[in-house]
Amino acid sequence: MYRTKTCGELRLTDAGNEVKLAGWVQRTRKMGGMTFVDLRDRYGITQLVFDESKDAALCERANKLGREFCIQVVGVVSERQSKNPKMPTGDIEILASELNVLSESLTPPFTIEDQTDGGDDIRMKYRYLDLRRSAVRKNLELRHKMTILIRNFLDAQNFIEVETPILIGSTPEGARDFVVPSRMNPGQFYALPQSPQTLKQLLMVSGFDRYFQIAKCFRDEDLRADRQPEFTQIDCEMSFVEQEDVLQIFEDLARHLFKEIRGIELPALQRMTWHEAMRRFGSDKPDLRFGMEFVELMDVLKGTGSFPVFNEANYIGGICVPGAADYTRKQLDQLTEFVKRPQVGAKGLVYVKFNADGTVKSSIDKFYEPEVWQKVKEAMGAKDGDLVLILSGDNANKTRVQLCTLRLEMGDRLGLRDKDKFVCLWIVDFPLFEWSDEEQRLMATHHPFTMPNPDDIPLLDTDPAKVRAVAYDFVCDGVEVGGGSLRIHDGKLQEKMFQILGFTPERAMAQFGFLINAFKYGAPPHAGLAFGLDRFVSLMAGLDSIRDCIAFPKNNSGRDVMLDAPGELDPKQLEELQLKVDLSQE
Amino acid sequence: MYRTKTCGELRLTDAGNEVKLAGWVQRTRKMGGMTFVDLRDRYGITQLVFDESKDAALCERANKLGREFCIQVVGVVSERQSKNPKMPTGDIEILASELNVLSESLTPPFTIEDQTDGGDDIRMKYRYLDLRRSAVRKNLELRHKMTILIRNFLDAQNFIEVETPILIGSTPEGARDFVVPSRMNPGQFYALPQSPQTLKQLLMVSGFDRYFQIAKCFRDEDLRADRQPEFTQIDCEMSFVEQEDVLQIFEDLARHLFKEIRGIELPALQRMTWHEAMRRFGSDKPDLRFGMEFVELMDVLKGTGSFPVFNEANYIGGICVPGAADYTRKQLDQLTEFVKRPQVGAKGLVYVKFNADGTVKSSIDKFYEPEVWQKVKEAMGAKDGDLVLILSGDNANKTRVQLCTLRLEMGDRLGLRDKDKFVCLWIVDFPLFEWSDEEQRLMATHHPFTMPNPDDIPLLDTDPAKVRAVAYDFVCDGVEVGGGSLRIHDGKLQEKMFQILGFTPERAMAQFGFLINAFKYGAPPHAGLAFGLDRFVSLMAGLDSIRDCIAFPKNNSGRDVMLDAPGELDPKQLEELQLKVDLSQE
Repeated sequence: MYRTKTCGELRLTDAGNEVKLAGWVQRTRKMGGMTFVDLRDRYGITQLVFDESKDAALCERANKLGREFCIQVVGVVSERQSKNPKMPTGDIEILASELNVLSESLTPPFTIEDQTDGGDDIRMKYRYLDLRRSAVRKNLELRHKMTILIRNFLDAQNFIEVETPILIGSTPEGARDFVVPSRMNPGQFYALPQSPQTLKQLLMVSGFDRYFQIAKCFRDEDLRADRQPEFTQIDCEMSFVEQEDVLQIFEDLARHLFKEIRGIELPALQRMTWHEAMRRFGSDKPDLRFGMEFVELMDVLKGTGSFPVFNEANYIGGICVPGAADYTRKQLDQLTEFVKRPQVGAKGLVYVKFNADGTVKSSIDKFYEPEVWQKVKEAMGAKDGDLVLILSGDNANKTRVQLCTLRLEMGDRLGLRDKDKFVCLWIVDFPLFEWSDEEQRLMATHHPFTMPNPDDIPLLDTDPAKVRAVAYDFVCDGVEVGGGSLRIHDGKLQEKMFQILGFTPERAMAQFGFLINAFKYGAPPHAGLAFGLDRFVSLMAGLDSIRDCIAFPKNNSGRDVMLDAPGELDPKQLEELQLKVDLSQE
Repeated sequence: MYRTKTCGELRLTDAGNEVKLAGWVQRTRKMGGMTFVDLRDRYGITQLVFDESKDAALCERANKLGREFCIQVVGVVSERQSKNPKMPTGDIEILASELNVLSESLTPPFTIEDQTDGGDDIRMKYRYLDLRRSAVRKNLELRHKMTILIRNFLDAQNFIEVETPILIGSTPEGARDFVVPSRMNPGQFYALPQSPQTLKQLLMVSGFDRYFQIAKCFRDEDLRADRQPEFTQIDCEMSFVEQEDVLQIFEDLARHLFKEIRGIELPALQRMTWHEAMRRFGSDKPDLRFGMEFVELMDVLKGTGSFPVFNEANYIGGICVPGAADYTRKQLDQLTEFVKRPQVGAKGLVYVKFNADGTVKSSIDKFYEPEVWQKVKEAMGAKDGDLVLILSGDNANKTRVQLCTLRLEMGDRLGLRDKDKFVCLWIVDFPLFEWSDEEQRLMATHHPFTMPNPDDIPLLDTDPAKVRAVAYDFVCDGVEVGGGSLRIHDGKLQEKMFQILGFTPERAMAQFGFLINAFKYGAPPHAGLAFGLDRFVSLMAGLDSIRDCIAFPKNNSGRDVMLDAPGELDPKQLEELQLKVDLSQE
């Protein structure tokens, strides 16, 4: 046996017992003829003591231990003189009588502490050392705990986890597929699934009724923001259900997770339509941890003064930042720059300071009579001491999205986005289609299998852009954690959808023939939802990036810098696949 | 609500209640003014009755229902006149008052029954219909149940499930990799993991201690026998352990599964060395459900008669088939043909019939004095009425493998391979290396990271082929369900292994540099094991093929005939990947 106990479990009640521990040297220090070693394993840290006066040779060997040496120690548990109340094992130490170096370590390239001195790049290259830091390891432990809770919850609700294949066919709709050349079928390729969407719908056709899978998904997208080429979904589908059934089950699941993981009783989730969310927060994933709701100011500011920007605008909206009227010129300039950044893209920021002394100061004072600012104050519900920030533009929703970014920035600045506070809600009634400027056509907001709202079906022929989908997103703290929809199970309606999306019948058949055919054999009404596991874990753990809850993530170029992958192939491999790399096309 | 009850749950105690059911029409039949419909869902079958005398129009609509229509029905639960004790719902029927066709069905291409009339190909093409058959669905339900049991068992033992990446680097050692071109890194490729072997070893370096993952693995091999290009492993690794710790935990896991799934108390598993298994059964995965152990007959038959084949043989071995002395000439001819098949490859079969009347008849009577057959009888422990089958050859182990195939064939013929009987054992002390005729070099029997038996380390320099590995397989009923090994955690020993395997230091570094480097930072002693989930489920369910427990399997050409994948890519996709298909190399 390499150990009889772990480094996290010994307490004062164990005093007097001989134990064997194994782990890594966190640090060593000499003090008055004693050598102290902090021994670390996954379960905690235990202090070892080597007493020079009792065994000088042993102590000498302990002095030679370097950081991250992997060692095994025998000794007696004993009460510490100076206890450390911050550590669960802080009451005891081990009076070591044997020491065995299991393997030595080079000096690690960064310190293995919660607050490390290692930059992102070096920590990714040595990810196996980064994972020794308890701050990182805890995220993976949380991830494990969440998946166990999720699986047992869904199992208890009669859901069956079914593994769907990773090597499937390519469907060039939506994001870009990763593809896999088939040696046995030369010139042909598999694709990795962007999600098990069509396969889980087939399982519904098969009568599986309640399916789930914690499934790897793959998208070959440029990795802006917090994305990974491979990510994990909690993928679910149910038959013989309406939207309400789905929301109920997955709200219960979310409530269960918040309770078990964070000890939080989530209240019943509010529902907000997509239109309302856009109007009030400029986002289909509003962060409701704080207010600063949008107030439309068209009536108050358009045509009531001589500011040409407002007079030409199709949308003017503001947020009221409480207590921020004392923002300095410099701070306001920063905000003005912030909204001009390409990521935000707003043309200009207008501010109105309602000073604590009752005076008003705006960046466009000269264009308006003072009573207009009083109307703004009323409309915004602003109090003396508040700062009102206003954006305007041609396109209402685009301007709202810009205002949303500003709102979130102000939330951050005011410390209102508390990582220990969770406000979840359902966004419902998404538009079924969205216009793609790039493709110059209507695209499915979710995917081509989403059910239109039955009330809007006549609009499919007359004004498809207005059709609402029976689709829903689970949103928490400004993050889209999950989403889903009722699916079309009627062949005729599905045909019409493909038609509106610009598919020829031939193309629809070539891409989705298996599903279209399957629906001819008694397809049940069905609906589903998928949570992003990486995002859900990050949310629960309060992480800034999903990378922090992934054991071996890739960087923004899609590289695993630790494995040095991807890499070049052996020419023999390419030959067997009957492929040639042709970089001339670049 | 689409339904208030499922089709599997109604009992006589529900009589009088109005219920709503939804499901598929299994069959309809008219009888004396009544129409009976068997309604099926995942949970069972419930009989619906439409009474012409009560609602002729409704009954008329019921008469028009076709097989596999998806319908919804309202009615009152009522006691059946003629009960069906074979069905859990056989005591009741539903007196239908409403019928709603949710979606119609074409006539399915085969019957959706436990015993279907559909051949393999058509069932695979319409796999979504095949999955409606309860015989198939039950396998996936079992698979789900097993994974839940496995995860909860391992979780309770402090194992953490960690997801390792699917897009990794190619290591052209062992089987062929599936590769994935990287658009963001033109000319470079990811590989899909053949197993998470190196990644789980890195997690041990990270201190994760007890890892598991139910992981998809990929091997681009020609799909002879019962293989799939993607398959699933229960992949585990532990630190600070010896072989004994690993065997104990996973024997406990297996015992837990057999108990929970099959209600069987597995006895403590016997351990058999690889050498013993080869000697006694000619296989490293012996089927111990029946006897017919090999008896070596070199002393008895080599040089004791004039049969040249035996006199030149380096191995002569036999099995005693109890009570088979009455095998006819035709049956014996069949066996002679059987051993000559290319899959077996034996040169010739010799039989000795110890007839019930005490006489002896052998295919090589003329070469031996009668007393030799008495010695054979003694050596084999044969009784009157038994049949002894003998094979011989130049190479002892090759001949044993042939004799093993014959033994299994006889086990099948005698009905001794009972699918409800489970005999599990550990095979230990595998050879560390095996000679590859193809590559003309020693290859790692398992993989290059397997620890040699400490007693055999001196042999690494003198006679590596004799070195035993600390490696073990979990075998049940002739199936290798799992296997693993203690790993090398010492850099120097690992270097030596690579050297023996013919890796230059540069090549070792290029392929496994990340692991070699990681081991420089205090690698703990570690060991692991992986079960093949598909095989384990098949074993538990008594399936002939792993395909039967996989939702969407591929055929022997690696094709998913339902999805029609793999397929050709859009030229734009190839362009983006800077690849060209070059079929001229064929």
